[in-house]
Amino acid sequence: MGSTVLSDLATEIVVPVCAVIGIVFSLIQWFLVSRIKVSPDRHSSSSNNGKGAGYGDYLIEEEEGLNDHNVVVKCAEIQNAISEGATSFLFTEYQYVGVFMVAFAILIFLFLGSVKGFSTKSQACTYNPQEMCKPALATAIFSTVSFTLGAVTSVVSGFLGMKIATYANARTTLEARKGVGKAFIVAFRSGAVMGFMLAANGLLVLYIAINLFKLYYGDDWEGLFEAITGYGLGGSSMALFGRVGGGIYTKAADVGADLVGKVERNIPEDDPRNPAVIADNVGDNVGDIAGMGSDLFGSYAESSCAALVVASISSFGINHDFTAMCYPLLVSSMGILVCLITTLFATDFFEIKAVKEIEPALKKQLIISTVLMTVGVAIVSWIALPSSFTIFNFGSQKVVKNWQLFLCVGVGLWAGLIIGFVTEYYTSNAYSPVQDVADSCRTGAATNVIFGLALGYKSVIIPIFAIAVSIFVSFSFAAMYGIAVAALGMLSTIATGLAIDAYGPISDNAGGIAEMAGMSHRIRERTDALDAAGNTTAAIGKGFAIGSAALVSLALFGAFVSRASISTVDVLTPKVFIGLLVGAMLPYWFSAMTMKSVGSAALKMVEEVRRQFNTIPGLMEGLAKPDYATCVKISTDASIKEMIPPGALVMLTPLIVGTFFGVETLSGVLAGSLVSGVQIAISASNTGGAWDNAKKYIEVSIRLSEAIGGFLSWPVYTVVIALTILFH
Amino acid sequence: MGSTVLSDLATEIVVPVCAVIGIVFSLIQWFLVSRIKVSPDRHSSSSNNGKGAGYGDYLIEEEEGLNDHNVVVKCAEIQNAISEGATSFLFTEYQYVGVFMVAFAILIFLFLGSVKGFSTKSQACTYNPQEMCKPALATAIFSTVSFTLGAVTSVVSGFLGMKIATYANARTTLEARKGVGKAFIVAFRSGAVMGFMLAANGLLVLYIAINLFKLYYGDDWEGLFEAITGYGLGGSSMALFGRVGGGIYTKAADVGADLVGKVERNIPEDDPRNPAVIADNVGDNVGDIAGMGSDLFGSYAESSCAALVVASISSFGINHDFTAMCYPLLVSSMGILVCLITTLFATDFFEIKAVKEIEPALKKQLIISTVLMTVGVAIVSWIALPSSFTIFNFGSQKVVKNWQLFLCVGVGLWAGLIIGFVTEYYTSNAYSPVQDVADSCRTGAATNVIFGLALGYKSVIIPIFAIAVSIFVSFSFAAMYGIAVAALGMLSTIATGLAIDAYGPISDNAGGIAEMAGMSHRIRERTDALDAAGNTTAAIGKGFAIGSAALVSLALFGAFVSRASISTVDVLTPKVFIGLLVGAMLPYWFSAMTMKSVGSAALKMVEEVRRQFNTIPGLMEGLAKPDYATCVKISTDASIKEMIPPGALVMLTPLIVGTFFGVETLSGVLAGSLVSGVQIAISASNTGGAWDNAKKYIEVSIRLSEAIGGFLSWPVYTVVIALTILFH
Repeated sequence: MGSTVLSDLATEIVVPVCAVIGIVFSLIQWFLVSRIKVSPDRHSSSSNNGKGAGYGDYLIEEEEGLNDHNVVVKCAEIQNAISEGATSFLFTEYQYVGVFMVAFAILIFLFLGSVKGFSTKSQACTYNPQEMCKPALATAIFSTVSFTLGAVTSVVSGFLGMKIATYANARTTLEARKGVGKAFIVAFRSGAVMGFMLAANGLLVLYIAINLFKLYYGDDWEGLFEAITGYGLGGSSMALFGRVGGGIYTKAADVGADLVGKVERNIPEDDPRNPAVIADNVGDNVGDIAGMGSDLFGSYAESSCAALVVASISSFGINHDFTAMCYPLLVSSMGILVCLITTLFATDFFEIKAVKEIEPALKKQLIISTVLMTVGVAIVSWIALPSSFTIFNFGSQKVVKNWQLFLCVGVGLWAGLIIGFVTEYYTSNAYSPVQDVADSCRTGAATNVIFGLALGYKSVIIPIFAIAVSIFVSFSFAAMYGIAVAALGMLSTIATGLAIDAYGPISDNAGGIAEMAGMSHRIRERTDALDAAGNTTAAIGKGFAIGSAALVSLALFGAFVSRASISTVDVLTPKVFIGLLVGAMLPYWFSAMTMKSVGSAALKMVEEVRRQFNTIPGLMEGLAKPDYATCVKISTDASIKEMIPPGALVMLTPLIVGTFFGVETLSGVLAGSLVSGVQIAISASNTGGAWDNAKKYIEVSIRLSEAIGGFLSWPVYTVVIALTILFH
Repeated sequence: MGSTVLSDLATEIVVPVCAVIGIVFSLIQWFLVSRIKVSPDRHSSSSNNGKGAGYGDYLIEEEEGLNDHNVVVKCAEIQNAISEGATSFLFTEYQYVGVFMVAFAILIFLFLGSVKGFSTKSQACTYNPQEMCKPALATAIFSTVSFTLGAVTSVVSGFLGMKIATYANARTTLEARKGVGKAFIVAFRSGAVMGFMLAANGLLVLYIAINLFKLYYGDDWEGLFEAITGYGLGGSSMALFGRVGGGIYTKAADVGADLVGKVERNIPEDDPRNPAVIADNVGDNVGDIAGMGSDLFGSYAESSCAALVVASISSFGINHDFTAMCYPLLVSSMGILVCLITTLFATDFFEIKAVKEIEPALKKQLIISTVLMTVGVAIVSWIALPSSFTIFNFGSQKVVKNWQLFLCVGVGLWAGLIIGFVTEYYTSNAYSPVQDVADSCRTGAATNVIFGLALGYKSVIIPIFAIAVSIFVSFSFAAMYGIAVAALGMLSTIATGLAIDAYGPISDNAGGIAEMAGMSHRIRERTDALDAAGNTTAAIGKGFAIGSAALVSLALFGAFVSRASISTVDVLTPKVFIGLLVGAMLPYWFSAMTMKSVGSAALKMVEEVRRQFNTIPGLMEGLAKPDYATCVKISTDASIKEMIPPGALVMLTPLIVGTFFGVETLSGVLAGSLVSGVQIAISASNTGGAWDNAKKYIEVSIRLSEAIGGFLSWPVYTVVIALTILFH
């Protein structure tokens, strides 16, 4: 079997060092952003990137003789309002979710502990019955701890992301006065703060947890990594609520603000006279930043844990080869370094000078990170893996070479790039699909809806083939472990992916602030250009999230099936087939719930906005201030209340099906919901992105955006929960 | 095993007699409709139902002093224009499809014949190797013949349906002058002509084919019923093109006519000044009548054939028990008698006196036919089946009791009723879902689209459970034979189902003719009431079609798997799983194609209609006639051209996947496309139906209708084709 080039000691050092490098880099980016002052007295020093008073360093406001002092004060005010709204919403959300998390943690403890009557005696291992493993009570305690760690890390990741985003939006607006390039750098750096913070934190917490747990578990790696799976579950449970709650919030506010403001009153987007405008901007931060962050963290944690738990019962775990065991963590560590270099290409090596360079710059980020990461994965696979080893495969051990594992990670990585580019093609207004959708508006909303939905359906084809190829290659080489590391490969450039993702809502908010602060039209044009690119990148981010969720779900499905001792899931048995059929229905049910929630909340919002326009004298003339708080409250209440039924559906389905219909039907349900959910998710996400950009392309379009596509990375959750409940 | 109460001779008599009764009843209905004259000179005798000059027998026109002569002449003219347009389109369509059918028939002959080198020698049977079966060349010839028979029967069914519909529409309009009850009876009778003609013809042709083939095959029932499966394939291949071609035609015309006429020009629906109005009315006939007829015939023929082919290798076939073998045909025969009685409830036993009685009357049809049919199936199961027998189940024989088979048929029958009622609940404007959608229009198109899509997604839940229960019950009792007869049970009341179905477009056309002929507003109100009920019933019909298609597909899938000698289709193997994933994507691809086609054709139509309004002087004032023919041509050209790619996708997928990736992946693809397609089909169909009725409910809504849901009974076709290619 051979040993690894990298020693165990080196692994122990390399992983935390890379994580710390990521955190430090994130702090540096944050520091650079913070040097732009939003206090009015020192605006002359707002040029901060050390390049002196070169090109574009004068301010449009000065040129046009506007009162700069007032503008900066106003920006600061608006930024505060958005930040406070977002913080207050997240705290409310976390209170509710916190109660659920505590209950769920207790449930996990009781469930796992009760399996052997809270026994404190050691027991024979499940996969190596000749060895002794730690008692069930230990598994219960450590699983609960790692679940809590995962949940808390997810919350912290989302919250910090929101904080930096609301910290950066006004700064982006102010920098936009100096040119589109400067604004781009601020927005992108802020995105990078979130990306690196999340990737590095996720890695570091996982690494520390493994090392601390090892103090107790010692050589019982089977028990150790089983307990670690709680980390992934915690992360993705939080993600479920973050995504659904944030999604309902942002879409209700978005739809409500636009329908009355733009369509009925014919005032610009983000006009300060619109009562829902603050809620709209808050929504971008809680939904597209905090929600997306939690979501990607969840997938990342799940794929790491899925890989680790399979590895623990493969030759890595049996031979106690720590470096090989940590292969998933080493890939993530390499990812942080690669993304660091990639980020410099966007912020330091080149400077954007014109609007049309924005999208290529973001695209280059994807390409550079993927190419570099391919080399990185090759290095990691070479130094961290024995040349030959075995991987657990539904009861037997399969021999795998290190280059095969490299291919598994690589195929996931490149599938991610393909999904990204396909998404870009279908959602960017630079290509014919979105132009066709925009063009179809000439004949009204009906053809627009038809074209938009058709575009979404069509955009599913290539990503599905990409995912199918990844599954086939990675499974053929290394069974379920291969699929888990393929997911990890897709997520290995998560820091760059998240930076691109977070960049979008930040630019969107920057545009809103420019509008609300009454800044020059030229500044709004610049932020709009940033925002259009951001809409596309948001869709790309969702593409990554969905693709990796599909792979992770499958890996977890495999783990579930292994643990439930099912050797075949035969479609030809009626139990499995009706499971498939009903499972394929569940994403529709889930979507119906969330869409109905968005629709109802948007209706309420529209009525409130109309009421304010009709009853507050002088509002349309700009003489009176609207009541922003009521709109924020509508979105908050709706999302908190409405996130419960879809959450319950996801959580209860596996429990109910498993209990009443048995594991075979449950297997069918999981497979069915996976293959059906991924289609709905991709098509809805791209339809939403395309509509959003078609709206920019010409000013007639309907504001459906991602009301439909916002929160549909459904499949992962079912599987996750099923896994834990039946896994143990 | 025991013998049957009904002797073989009795079976030989009963089946054709029932079929002939159906045809005679159909002709009587046609005769009753034909007694309403659309020639102006004899209008005083247009009261024809023998009840004398009772209630409502005066004409609104006379009362209001309108020129009755001119109105009747105009109605006749418009009817002719619609009929000619529909006939000409269908002939064009049949030319293209005919070429394809001939090519496909030749392909089938060559493919099946070449398996054994066009051998004319007898060979050992596949399932009973100790017996001798007829040569491969015979199978090739007879399969080709039955394929052709199926295709021709499908064409004839669709064509006759269209003819009677275009014959009845103006008559319904004229009868509407006497009251809504009279108009209802005409429309419903005309629907019944189509329903009974199709059900009885389908049965009779199948019966005759079996008896003729038997002259050659003798006791080789395995070969006989294998050859008969071509009948189902012929029917459903035609249905594919009929549905897609007709669907694109009708939706393009519909969307095009409404977007310019109603939305931009603010003229009423079906206003004669609208250049697309004739195309719109033609579309109803070629899409919703001919297309739907072909579709249901396809499902009906497929389920009969699937049941027969399984029976031929079960104890029925092995023991040469002709009566039991003909159980599917006897169920259909009973269905004709039951539907005959049911129809009398609508047309003779009661008379509708008020608008609000229409929907209950149609609903009663569903309930009465289901209740009576339950008794009918019990009788058939008792007299036509031995008390105990065996059914082929993936290689083994399973013992089944006659009451179990009764339950299989019964569960399908009642699942159909449940699907029908759920569909009604979600698409009728009498209940809250459609009212909510209509209500959401207050805040614009975006919320309307969100609510509409959410409604469709939600409407999937109960039908899927109904189908799942049917599958579970029928498979548990009688394996794949059980599923085939469950599908047959759902379709056993096809005559009533089709009558209700066809009633919708006839009423729709009647309203159009009233508008175009310039008749009183009160008449239009009556036809609108008929039409609103018709939109709901059209959705119910689609629900039946989709539900039965799902069951039939599964039965055929089982047959394919049996023939391909696959004993398990294990989701845990990568080949099957990627098949599932890609299969679940195919309905999206298919839908993207058809929706894009509808969108493009609608765009062209809109531009043409706008052009005519802008360039023909006096058109808006009603002084000049629009150029109807150009609009008819746009729809015709678009649908002929655009039906080819989706058709090719359906036809080629199984061939390509089977050839390059093997039968395991193909099994996955078939299962995936089945479970995913049925969801899209139900949700799209109900979203469309709800939008259509929400539009009626208040006059602000977008005209998406069933652009999305029109032709999505996708899964059946893939499976069908796969079946035949690999079956033999």
